[in-house]
Amino acid sequence: MSTAPNPTSGYVFNQTMLRIKDPSQSLAFYQDVLGMTLYQRVDFEEMRFSLYFLGYVSNHEPATLPEDPLARSRFTFAQSALLELTHNWGTESDAEFLGYHNGNTEPRGFGHIGITVPDVDAACARFDSLDVAFVKRPDDGSMKGLAFIKDPDGYWIEILNQDSLTSLIDERGGLSH
Amino acid sequence: MSTAPNPTSGYVFNQTMLRIKDPSQSLAFYQDVLGMTLYQRVDFEEMRFSLYFLGYVSNHEPATLPEDPLARSRFTFAQSALLELTHNWGTESDAEFLGYHNGNTEPRGFGHIGITVPDVDAACARFDSLDVAFVKRPDDGSMKGLAFIKDPDGYWIEILNQDSLTSLIDERGGLSH
Repeated sequence: MSTAPNPTSGYVFNQTMLRIKDPSQSLAFYQDVLGMTLYQRVDFEEMRFSLYFLGYVSNHEPATLPEDPLARSRFTFAQSALLELTHNWGTESDAEFLGYHNGNTEPRGFGHIGITVPDVDAACARFDSLDVAFVKRPDDGSMKGLAFIKDPDGYWIEILNQDSLTSLIDERGGLSH
Repeated sequence: MSTAPNPTSGYVFNQTMLRIKDPSQSLAFYQDVLGMTLYQRVDFEEMRFSLYFLGYVSNHEPATLPEDPLARSRFTFAQSALLELTHNWGTESDAEFLGYHNGNTEPRGFGHIGITVPDVDAACARFDSLDVAFVKRPDDGSMKGLAFIKDPDGYWIEILNQDSLTSLIDERGGLSH
């Protein structure tokens, strides 16, 4: 029997990085519409880009972010489930910038991020009132009870809850092996 | 003063979805190399695709997954920081399938996922021993102490720790505002 320590002990899925055109629009969306908190902003002046790390503080302990900048940085990069938004300076005012690719047309790759919410219909009614763009509303298509919205760059965000896929699985008579 | 409840209370950043060519290769990589656990697999036979949800159980309570399929599904979709891998059946054996786009060449968009590890150098030495492909080793370039590796589809994975960016921030004399 092996007594070697697990070599991946302590690994944390910290971040998912998306490039964004305009931080003022993206921060408004992720903070005000989706309720995330900005953990950290880092500017790289020589390389002319900024990083924004956002997430749900309620997922983490402690539920308040450290005030000290370095303590806050160490805290941020120990958390799971952060969204990292990369802003290459100037895209927000460059008329020739065509925007970023969301991965759902050719060439495909990345598909979406997904947010679990307590009530998909209530969340989507609120998104509608805030003029959020929809890819799929909860009652569209064959997968009832889950939705896809778009962020300001056109990235897809699935809105689901604990029962969205579970009920589909149940209807179909169980999970695959 | 508003006494309205927070409309985004209970939101969880549950998933990041990437399309994959070959689940046998991707599952080996994310489970054996990166140490994730397969929470859930769901097959959609009529639509000919499967979803695989993986994450670090150690981030979550309880630390053991429910055995009952529906309880396990409800548990899975309540967690944060899961990776969702989508396999469209047949790509793994289709000689004409050119593979997926990782977002880091034109057209750009998605950049990477990032894993925080206790010791970047030790993690990278192990990845080297397992013949993992590197985009950037910890000592390459101007950002010392963090690395980028590639998964079997070529998606980039940042390997960082709590001090990787914190030390860069400290050297540069503090955070931006």
